[in-house]
Amino acid sequence: MKPETQPRVPPGGGAVSQKITPRAADYARWYLDVIQHAQLADHSAVRGCMVIRPNGYAIWEKMQRALDARFKATGHRNAYFPVFIPVSFLSKEAQHVEGFAKECAVVTHHRLRAKGDKSGVEVDPESKLEEPLIVRPTSETIIWSAYKQWIQSYRDLPILINQWVNVVRWEMRTRLFLRTAEFLWQEGHTAHATEKEAVEETRRMLDVYRDFSENVMAMPVICGPKTPGERFAGAVESFSIEAMMQDRRALQAGTSHYLGQNFAKAFDVQFLNAKGEREHVYAASWGVSTRLIGALIMTHSDDLGLVLPPRLADIQVVVVPIFKTEAEKTLVLEACERTIRALEAHNLEAHCDLREGMTPGAKYYDWEVKGVPLRIEIGPRDVESGKLVLVRRFVLEEPGDDEKAIRAKKKQFLSRDEAVSKTPAILDQMQQQLYQRALAFRSKHSRTVDSLEEYERFFKKEGGGFAWTHWAGSREDEEMMAKKYQTSIRNVPFERQGPPGSDGAGKCILTGKPSARRVLMSEAY
Amino acid sequence: MKPETQPRVPPGGGAVSQKITPRAADYARWYLDVIQHAQLADHSAVRGCMVIRPNGYAIWEKMQRALDARFKATGHRNAYFPVFIPVSFLSKEAQHVEGFAKECAVVTHHRLRAKGDKSGVEVDPESKLEEPLIVRPTSETIIWSAYKQWIQSYRDLPILINQWVNVVRWEMRTRLFLRTAEFLWQEGHTAHATEKEAVEETRRMLDVYRDFSENVMAMPVICGPKTPGERFAGAVESFSIEAMMQDRRALQAGTSHYLGQNFAKAFDVQFLNAKGEREHVYAASWGVSTRLIGALIMTHSDDLGLVLPPRLADIQVVVVPIFKTEAEKTLVLEACERTIRALEAHNLEAHCDLREGMTPGAKYYDWEVKGVPLRIEIGPRDVESGKLVLVRRFVLEEPGDDEKAIRAKKKQFLSRDEAVSKTPAILDQMQQQLYQRALAFRSKHSRTVDSLEEYERFFKKEGGGFAWTHWAGSREDEEMMAKKYQTSIRNVPFERQGPPGSDGAGKCILTGKPSARRVLMSEAY
Repeated sequence: MKPETQPRVPPGGGAVSQKITPRAADYARWYLDVIQHAQLADHSAVRGCMVIRPNGYAIWEKMQRALDARFKATGHRNAYFPVFIPVSFLSKEAQHVEGFAKECAVVTHHRLRAKGDKSGVEVDPESKLEEPLIVRPTSETIIWSAYKQWIQSYRDLPILINQWVNVVRWEMRTRLFLRTAEFLWQEGHTAHATEKEAVEETRRMLDVYRDFSENVMAMPVICGPKTPGERFAGAVESFSIEAMMQDRRALQAGTSHYLGQNFAKAFDVQFLNAKGEREHVYAASWGVSTRLIGALIMTHSDDLGLVLPPRLADIQVVVVPIFKTEAEKTLVLEACERTIRALEAHNLEAHCDLREGMTPGAKYYDWEVKGVPLRIEIGPRDVESGKLVLVRRFVLEEPGDDEKAIRAKKKQFLSRDEAVSKTPAILDQMQQQLYQRALAFRSKHSRTVDSLEEYERFFKKEGGGFAWTHWAGSREDEEMMAKKYQTSIRNVPFERQGPPGSDGAGKCILTGKPSARRVLMSEAY
Repeated sequence: MKPETQPRVPPGGGAVSQKITPRAADYARWYLDVIQHAQLADHSAVRGCMVIRPNGYAIWEKMQRALDARFKATGHRNAYFPVFIPVSFLSKEAQHVEGFAKECAVVTHHRLRAKGDKSGVEVDPESKLEEPLIVRPTSETIIWSAYKQWIQSYRDLPILINQWVNVVRWEMRTRLFLRTAEFLWQEGHTAHATEKEAVEETRRMLDVYRDFSENVMAMPVICGPKTPGERFAGAVESFSIEAMMQDRRALQAGTSHYLGQNFAKAFDVQFLNAKGEREHVYAASWGVSTRLIGALIMTHSDDLGLVLPPRLADIQVVVVPIFKTEAEKTLVLEACERTIRALEAHNLEAHCDLREGMTPGAKYYDWEVKGVPLRIEIGPRDVESGKLVLVRRFVLEEPGDDEKAIRAKKKQFLSRDEAVSKTPAILDQMQQQLYQRALAFRSKHSRTVDSLEEYERFFKKEGGGFAWTHWAGSREDEEMMAKKYQTSIRNVPFERQGPPGSDGAGKCILTGKPSARRVLMSEAY
């Protein structure tokens, strides 16, 4: 994906007249076009910060609900910690300061004053803070400074807390959803009496992310530990879930970290264990962000626009009335209204498009771009015959299908009762199909790679994808590979996730040294 | 309420050994004690910023759900706008800059660097921003700079957007929930084609706040416009809801503003109306914050701790098992489990307290302090007799009730089936009782005041409350009153909200000039 360029349509979307650039023509342009046309987000007036528009935020709300229910089901509660972190806190954990005390937003003053010439306002130099504050890039330090107050004995443990907040990392090159200076995320921070419990928590939450990705986002992921060079700053071990985008690159969709006693030592958080001995507390942290919306777009969407899995669709079924005369209007709207009520009785989220001054065709196009899974069209003749037209946002394509064949496959003529009663199953099927399609795509572009020549051919000539390779190189070797092939080790996958023959030991493709397990190598976002 | 002093218990709560200070002994101390003992919030390591602990955040989540459902039912959608605002944006609206370009968090740099002596990190002077950014104190300016991109014609209107975010106002004197440097809130920002529509929106959302306060928080409020001196900076007219706390002071619990074309003009947001003419857009904005948690505490809680209205209780019914032997334990826990399942089948939020190493009595005390509305106690003899003990967090007291009488009124012995089937109605009754009690308290301490002598007696000798007075004084007169009596005009209440005789015209208590409507005067938070 090329660096982001200016969007074609004005930032606000405005009148969207141009079509979406096909993926094959310009993948990076396509990604931005989908965001603009579906009105998911905009660049803002503040460098690197995005505006998440209602259509984009509705996806985030659905993600939040599904994740939050899973967090609560695993015993976590939400809380809120300050957005500001004193600069000195960062220095307390040696690796953490290396990783996060870099590009960040620094608050140095607490007051503005009128300019002398009254042309506006400026920073009041008298209001300089004794100690500068940074806007949280992640909250381990401020949270562990609070946990110190809450933990005295093993009876106070475990602490299982999550927060849904905004964070800021001053990125120089930004891309909507994928990399922005400010983004929204959740960060879980847990405190435990034993290493075993903290490690279990780390793995449990990685699995919650996997479950959410596969069953809600319909996005298959590969789970495993990161290599030491890719660990979270301050972690003993980091785990990730990695998904394949339609340009065959990997996207890290979530991480879960075992932090050992590093933060407990940095903030001197000790507890009295059951034996009456003082010990430092064990920690885990885990997070996913609005980056998931970027992953969602690049996993399922097509050249017609956004494709939403039914479980993340704010509107699952849109009903479009078709009429010319006032008499037809009355008839058709009444039928639409009855259909909506029947769908809602099945716990479906249905919406009737009553916009005036817009042709039905323009409405079809609009909802297609916005990714609504199902569309129902109802005209006067349909009312008479008691039927309606049900149109799917996508169908699985087969070899030989042309555009006409695909359009025909998408459409069904059904009685209203039949359409309503079948809709839940159709949406379930579409949810499964998206997952199957993404899984098939990933399988097609994944392979075991057992020599450097094969590796070079895969990435330089065959378009690349996920290379499952044995690796025993040094960090310098990894850097060399990154430079030469723009690839990196995404993670060291757990067993039984790769293509045939990917489990078991072998030899490093670079050094020939023995390797116990294959790593996942790929270009990445 | 006196300025906040250091809490008695350590910031984290820790082992809470001391009792809650009674309201009559020290109201300000009582407020802080309730927050500490119920573990709602803490002071943080960052000056003026609070940590909202899980028990406090659970209340906020309940408030969010109830409000968000009301916002969506009135056609609003959520979005997210950047946390940073360029300083120059503030200067665009003349009144707004006066109001908000004062105490705020100013971001001036975007990088830290290692100190020369390696003792930590410091601000990198090379990373100075071309234009400083402030952390949003409110988002009109950044949002209207986005709306400019989205609005071309009347077809793009109305825009009905809300966001749930953190905001920062650098307050010098802070009080947990009531006034903190950072707080959480929602801010609705709407754009309309006509003044009429924008004014209707302003009033509609004020009424949503009233409905929420009364029916969810069980907190009666007085609605009306603020006086010109108390308007939001940049508003044409501001409305508020005002509640009476148990120390008889007023607390502004929510505001809704009609902004006219002020922000549209500041950011040059014009639209083409149906006649094809260019016109500036009309605006409204409205918000409530985590301050509501402070209002909730001070409306209902008592000397035993927090009191939660059932509709805002994360746990509505707590079940406490009582046993000594292992055989009893098996018996009792099974009965508890069955009770919980039966309560959950009634859509109630029930929790079984299985903590070990804690006596039943200590558990009762703990849940009482935390405000859980109902407690069920089940012991071995109860299992045998098929009964249980149901205890209410509070009952309405009558003259002559002593502590023993109150305790007796709180307790009921019921069969399990009866307890479960009656619980929804009991919770509804408790919700109503809280509202009625708060309303009775407010009525008792509200009166029409028709002379300055009466006013002075009311506030200086009789403990004060809500004074409904005729007023036609100048802003200087208002300031004089504030200085002399520590009172202010809370709002100019709509009709039929005051004590008998409070509607209709009269004469200003200070100037004797004619006045069309009474104002609400009170001490305030």
